[in-house]
Amino acid sequence: MSTKLVLVRHGQSVWNKENRFTGWKDVDLTEQGRAEAKTAGDLLQEAGFEFDIAYTSVLKRAIRTLWTILDTMDQMWIPVVRDYRLNERHYGALQGLNKAETAAKYGDEQVLVWRRSYDTPPPPMERDDERYAGRFRVYRGLGDAEIPLSESLKDTVARFVPYFQSVIEPDIRAGKQVLICAHGNSLRALVKHLGNISDEEIVKLNIPTGIPMVYELDDNLKPIKNYYLGDAEAAAAAAEAVANQGKA
Amino acid sequence: MSTKLVLVRHGQSVWNKENRFTGWKDVDLTEQGRAEAKTAGDLLQEAGFEFDIAYTSVLKRAIRTLWTILDTMDQMWIPVVRDYRLNERHYGALQGLNKAETAAKYGDEQVLVWRRSYDTPPPPMERDDERYAGRFRVYRGLGDAEIPLSESLKDTVARFVPYFQSVIEPDIRAGKQVLICAHGNSLRALVKHLGNISDEEIVKLNIPTGIPMVYELDDNLKPIKNYYLGDAEAAAAAAEAVANQGKA
Repeated sequence: MSTKLVLVRHGQSVWNKENRFTGWKDVDLTEQGRAEAKTAGDLLQEAGFEFDIAYTSVLKRAIRTLWTILDTMDQMWIPVVRDYRLNERHYGALQGLNKAETAAKYGDEQVLVWRRSYDTPPPPMERDDERYAGRFRVYRGLGDAEIPLSESLKDTVARFVPYFQSVIEPDIRAGKQVLICAHGNSLRALVKHLGNISDEEIVKLNIPTGIPMVYELDDNLKPIKNYYLGDAEAAAAAAEAVANQGKA
Repeated sequence: MSTKLVLVRHGQSVWNKENRFTGWKDVDLTEQGRAEAKTAGDLLQEAGFEFDIAYTSVLKRAIRTLWTILDTMDQMWIPVVRDYRLNERHYGALQGLNKAETAAKYGDEQVLVWRRSYDTPPPPMERDDERYAGRFRVYRGLGDAEIPLSESLKDTVARFVPYFQSVIEPDIRAGKQVLICAHGNSLRALVKHLGNISDEEIVKLNIPTGIPMVYELDDNLKPIKNYYLGDAEAAAAAAEAVANQGKA
């Protein structure tokens, strides 16, 4: 017996388009991003998915992507759980900076380290920074230790994977069809966990926006196979575009 | 110390517009209904509401109204709980019939009894009816006893009020700002409970679509006062329009 788990990275956001480090900044989808979300819904609908529950972050680009998918599939009634642990990797002091500008300033190599090193976080944000997440009502219930000032991918793994194991895995084991709508790096954290991918390999893996990725899992929740829905070449091209974002 | 509770009846639906008995049929909002939801969000935003949690039914006209409000208020991140116990009153065999046609056939008086009697349910739907809710995935987890074949307002009170008391009241007592986005009769059930309104009086009370109703509650969750946001005359006119829907 196998069960399917579906992951979707939110559609293009305003800051994806402007090539800026987004992190926990709550930017919205572009028109293209909304269209991508609609297409994701169409693909899932055509593939016959009937979801029992969906998980997403507290960031509107992921929530709106999820809403669009559920609307397109006429499954608006399923329970939706929002949790900050599915948020994008926190980009520290780089949040809001243009990626190309940052690359021009620090060099491609340094930016690639910040973007693609497994365990080197970007320079931290200060707590008195107006961008500090603790200022916003959505994170009010969290202690200082839970609100990152910067995160490496390793930190994002440490934030999201235990949540996946304790909250989402029981749903999958109970036979529920789960949809996760999240972000490039929180999904990368999950993909690393599911596929037992090495620290070196995971940083090279790019997840395209708005294309559903299906995992078929065995009874131990190990992947039997995984694939993108829709046009494989389009998925590869979209992943390549993500990989090139950090270059000057 | 007082706390506020906000109730919103979904915006105009396709079947509101066609003057048909809707009940548990999952019809969508009209363009006007979407605009009403947007206006509700604007009014709540202007009044400075910051919600901690929202409750809605499993019917898309209520969910879309809620989504529109949360989007308008930039509060998409708050937890949302969907539960069938907030659904509209089940209209039994009348579901889908045009209210004016039904009135012409059975007489204004009989329709008014079905619409406005406190404890007389409309004729029941059969379980082999293609409209029977048990056929749909959303209600799969429910037993026969939980899926109505028809409901009086009294039945709707018996379905929703215990849920309100056991699930929503604790949130209010914990100081959470709660938004409930539901239906004409599930909200009427709640209004009866909150205000201790008699069976005779509650059936005369009409709740307009898409206009936020604010309850200020004391520590025992008894209403200190309640009012509609926005233009009082507009709210009265909208309530009057609802009252006249059942006439031939």
